[in-house]
Amino acid sequence: LEPREGLVEELAAVVGPNNVLEDEHARADYEVDWTGRYKGRARLVVRPGTPEEVARSVVICGQGGASIVPQGGNTGLVGGAVPVNGEVVISLRRMNRLVEVDAGSGQVVAEAGVTLATLAGAAAQAGWRFGIDFAARDSATVGGMIATNAGGLHVMRHGSMREQIIGIEAVLADGQVIGRLSGLLKDNTGYHLPSLLAGSEGTLGIITRACLKLVRRDSSRASALIGVDGPEQAEEIVNRLRQSCESLAAAELILENGLSLVLKHQRRERPLPEHPAYVLVETASNRDAETELVDALADIGVVSAVLAAGANEQRRLWELREGLTDAISAVGVPHKFDVSLPAGRIRHLMAKLPDLVAAIEPNAVIVVFGHLGDRNLHINVLGLGRGDGRVDDVVLRAVLREGGSISAEHGIGRAKRRWLPFDRSRADLAAMRAIKASLDPRGIFNPGVLFA
Amino acid sequence: LEPREGLVEELAAVVGPNNVLEDEHARADYEVDWTGRYKGRARLVVRPGTPEEVARSVVICGQGGASIVPQGGNTGLVGGAVPVNGEVVISLRRMNRLVEVDAGSGQVVAEAGVTLATLAGAAAQAGWRFGIDFAARDSATVGGMIATNAGGLHVMRHGSMREQIIGIEAVLADGQVIGRLSGLLKDNTGYHLPSLLAGSEGTLGIITRACLKLVRRDSSRASALIGVDGPEQAEEIVNRLRQSCESLAAAELILENGLSLVLKHQRRERPLPEHPAYVLVETASNRDAETELVDALADIGVVSAVLAAGANEQRRLWELREGLTDAISAVGVPHKFDVSLPAGRIRHLMAKLPDLVAAIEPNAVIVVFGHLGDRNLHINVLGLGRGDGRVDDVVLRAVLREGGSISAEHGIGRAKRRWLPFDRSRADLAAMRAIKASLDPRGIFNPGVLFA
Repeated sequence: LEPREGLVEELAAVVGPNNVLEDEHARADYEVDWTGRYKGRARLVVRPGTPEEVARSVVICGQGGASIVPQGGNTGLVGGAVPVNGEVVISLRRMNRLVEVDAGSGQVVAEAGVTLATLAGAAAQAGWRFGIDFAARDSATVGGMIATNAGGLHVMRHGSMREQIIGIEAVLADGQVIGRLSGLLKDNTGYHLPSLLAGSEGTLGIITRACLKLVRRDSSRASALIGVDGPEQAEEIVNRLRQSCESLAAAELILENGLSLVLKHQRRERPLPEHPAYVLVETASNRDAETELVDALADIGVVSAVLAAGANEQRRLWELREGLTDAISAVGVPHKFDVSLPAGRIRHLMAKLPDLVAAIEPNAVIVVFGHLGDRNLHINVLGLGRGDGRVDDVVLRAVLREGGSISAEHGIGRAKRRWLPFDRSRADLAAMRAIKASLDPRGIFNPGVLFA
Repeated sequence: LEPREGLVEELAAVVGPNNVLEDEHARADYEVDWTGRYKGRARLVVRPGTPEEVARSVVICGQGGASIVPQGGNTGLVGGAVPVNGEVVISLRRMNRLVEVDAGSGQVVAEAGVTLATLAGAAAQAGWRFGIDFAARDSATVGGMIATNAGGLHVMRHGSMREQIIGIEAVLADGQVIGRLSGLLKDNTGYHLPSLLAGSEGTLGIITRACLKLVRRDSSRASALIGVDGPEQAEEIVNRLRQSCESLAAAELILENGLSLVLKHQRRERPLPEHPAYVLVETASNRDAETELVDALADIGVVSAVLAAGANEQRRLWELREGLTDAISAVGVPHKFDVSLPAGRIRHLMAKLPDLVAAIEPNAVIVVFGHLGDRNLHINVLGLGRGDGRVDDVVLRAVLREGGSISAEHGIGRAKRRWLPFDRSRADLAAMRAIKASLDPRGIFNPGVLFA
């Protein structure tokens, strides 16, 4: 469909002329993702200021035959919020108000454009904490985090973004506004639309506001880096800690070649003797997190570990984990994967990957780290041509053979939709398409995302 | 549609003649719910033994023009699993195998007919615990618990049934089987169908198996009954405990007239001086739950409370809460409500209820208790005619005026569908109907449940 005449004027009448960006220069920011990998052309960028303006903009676009790319902080990793060719970008960034922070009950109502950092700050000020945290906190927005079901470091403790939602408000393709924000912790009154929209990547509706739960703040934290003989022992230690250690808050896997890379990149001394792999664990509680961590590690017979004493040492330890991405990028442009695996399968995948990748490029280097508590691995392959798609096929097929998922937390977007039919069954995909068609029959929301 | 000839024979060929119940006497158990309030007539009862038999039965019923009522333990409270007039009941009770209990990772794969008690027992044997518990544990089944998004005593700590799901397998109206059971803790690959089916009350598909997460077992438990001056103070105490007390596991509200009833019914002494209301709290941890509870109560300045010393006293204290239903039933047949409220609104509702109910019946008695941590109230009205629907309208409208939900955890079923249009917006209901039509276009699953 060719967008009809007068679209700009109609949208300008709703959101104000300053919030309809036609100019190439003004649009540029919205046409490329932050990694620079996904770039397209938007016909227009619309910046509504209220849920009603979103709804009216959707109706106008729908009537005008224009498809819509909803966009939050534009920090997604799979090209799910970037226009391709002539869509209207609806940016939620102007809608950045914290509508209500209830310090008593620990609930927040936020507009879709509120950043994770703003949300976390407001939660702390009210004496609580938000359960999700990750590196892109200054740009990622509430709406985008729901649309992609964002994860991060604390999913093993608090769940992913879907589990933080008390209620949402969203605009559907017909301009109707669904959801409620009154703050009901339990509500079994029909289909749970918030859970369906979480992870729908902008293909079913535009999230405009959300009521989110906050979690208890911890007064005490402790971290330790544990040396292990490989992924199998790493997974076993985490399973045992999950059973015995109430204050376990994070468990990250680092392999020796990754630790070496980051130590060299950060010009640091090795914190404990060399092991094939390491587990970085964190406890957090209102009591003495350090004693709890030490006791838990002793209980399960951990012999090789370094404990971070005090906040500064803890930060230094976590810089090893958080510095991995930079250390890898300093070596070259990696092929990146974000996969998850069934229980006990990490070691199988890890054992097979080297040969599979070497068959494509003998000098390729594989650096694996990830959220071990969720069996979520971030696999990086260095030393390949940027456009060489063979490794993607090989790695993702190996993951699928182990019963794994091709996207643990980043989503499908445009980047991985080619592999989706190998990940989800035909019946699942047919159900997804039926749901998509039922809520967005003309396919105006995010065409090309999830579905080819 | 009139079911076609040969249906019985075709179904018998799939599930075996003994598992197609035509006889009135054999059907009887499946035609009435456990409360005796919902009763209908099934054309047939089919008892498949495998997911494949479920799928084939659904196809045969679909082709034969027979609609289907999926049924688990038949312990629902809203008539959502009982036939009305000539449907085929597909009972999942024969599918009661625990397919896999992974003691290492704390995950279980169970068939839909596994009871909560069986699941809890298997979890305990493996060194873990299942996060959901409630009174109907010997009859409620995994499939029914997912279909109704069951709640219970520990939702404030572990979430409802939806949050316990790692994966499901379900049969859709066309006989296709969706979902996966490989056990992925994180999986952002398109629409999350398990979350949509959770709480769909058998209207979208028949759940055949589920992969469920287990939670850490606690070695130490403590309980206390706190006297408070009313619902407002009760809610405030729970909010503050949620902020400060990591091991908080349950928080139940009891009002003085309820406590009086149950004390009289159980012929027991009053455990602490009379107060307008009480909060029964429980802590559970791997450390010293009693010290943690005592410290937490002291921290927030609780002055009137009785602590249960030891397991026996704890059980005695919880019998007060769990005996409320029996104590109420001993007085008469109550009108029952299961509602939830926004933060701070319980006291508003409680203040208004007496006048609203008295206007219908001056001698009516209102007994309220509930899961305070979820702001989920169970409201019982005694002293009305059984068929007097006026009180339902009055109470539910008062709940809706406070922004509450007409069904916190029991669902809509047939019992509450009349009020659903007052609870959910027209846009929500239209979206629900569109989803229903997309997955079950001929409406063969549970006609009359959720939607009129």
